[in-house]
Amino acid sequence: MPYIRETIITTIDRGGKVHIAPIGIIAERDGWVIAPFRPSVTLDNLGEVPFAIANYTDDVRIFAGCLTGRKDWPTVPLDGFPVPRLAAALAHSVLQVESVSDDSVRPRHFCCVVKEEMHAPFTGFNRAKAAVLELAILVSRLSMLPREKIEAEIAYLSIAIEKTASPDEREAWGWLMEKVEGYFAGG
Amino acid sequence: MPYIRETIITTIDRGGKVHIAPIGIIAERDGWVIAPFRPSVTLDNLGEVPFAIANYTDDVRIFAGCLTGRKDWPTVPLDGFPVPRLAAALAHSVLQVESVSDDSVRPRHFCCVVKEEMHAPFTGFNRAKAAVLELAILVSRLSMLPREKIEAEIAYLSIAIEKTASPDEREAWGWLMEKVEGYFAGG
Repeated sequence: MPYIRETIITTIDRGGKVHIAPIGIIAERDGWVIAPFRPSVTLDNLGEVPFAIANYTDDVRIFAGCLTGRKDWPTVPLDGFPVPRLAAALAHSVLQVESVSDDSVRPRHFCCVVKEEMHAPFTGFNRAKAAVLELAILVSRLSMLPREKIEAEIAYLSIAIEKTASPDEREAWGWLMEKVEGYFAGG
Repeated sequence: MPYIRETIITTIDRGGKVHIAPIGIIAERDGWVIAPFRPSVTLDNLGEVPFAIANYTDDVRIFAGCLTGRKDWPTVPLDGFPVPRLAAALAHSVLQVESVSDDSVRPRHFCCVVKEEMHAPFTGFNRAKAAVLELAILVSRLSMLPREKIEAEIAYLSIAIEKTASPDEREAWGWLMEKVEGYFAGG
């Protein structure tokens, strides 16, 4: 399987309304594939304005927030492109859709990289950030997994939270855990 | 528990010989604590030359390599400081030891940040990189864990390798798995 970068994708509709979504972009040749689920706002937006910004952020509250109804994160306009980047991006790539392979579940948009910029330094890996990201992926798949597998994974991931998190990662973890608990409670 | 950044620490001895070690640095007040195990080259070096470079790299081959006898990674001299940084650092902090709290296992070196520089953009999270880092931590603790727990964690972590790794993460994973297999074989 190809390399996947876990990013926050910003897109706009033809009226200029910004949409923010966590999406793993897939390495292909000299570009990246964005394969948004059908239906989704990102899919609609790419059909209207064929540009996306891949935001490389290590603020895991944005990943957790987008999955728990907290979608309003600050953006910054870019010179020369219609789509803004996240203010929290440490770096970003401007992606332009070159071709689309249709698919009943996830149409694959092959994108070339038009421009890349760096905004702030990477400050090292953090195990709690990685654990929040894994929990976010788990939360997006709750209905596909047995409860006992979900609980075992959470028990494993929570160790990194206890040992290495700052308040930001704890907050993100808490948002996702509310969602898990709501799901188990039938909410 | 405080926030921990997983970094590669470079130090030198008084003769200028460079040592590279993966170390989690611990947030404290406005600085970072380096707590190298006793005995270790990093501990000796900090006693001789009280500077360390915290290298923020996302090349997980360096973390896996340092645990498997592959310690020779390119470094770059820094203006104004005796210790070099890793060539693969996306960014680094120059840390200066301000005080040491002695400890029989891990003496805590409180360091202030003297300078920070950015070299290359962060390109987003990758689940396989995080999985390699977790396996590296597991490998450093093999003798403390029951075999069945080690095997269960590896089975879990290997999913991210299968789904999201590039050849670099596969190589790092392979080095660590050789070590695990050698350990189980009694090597």
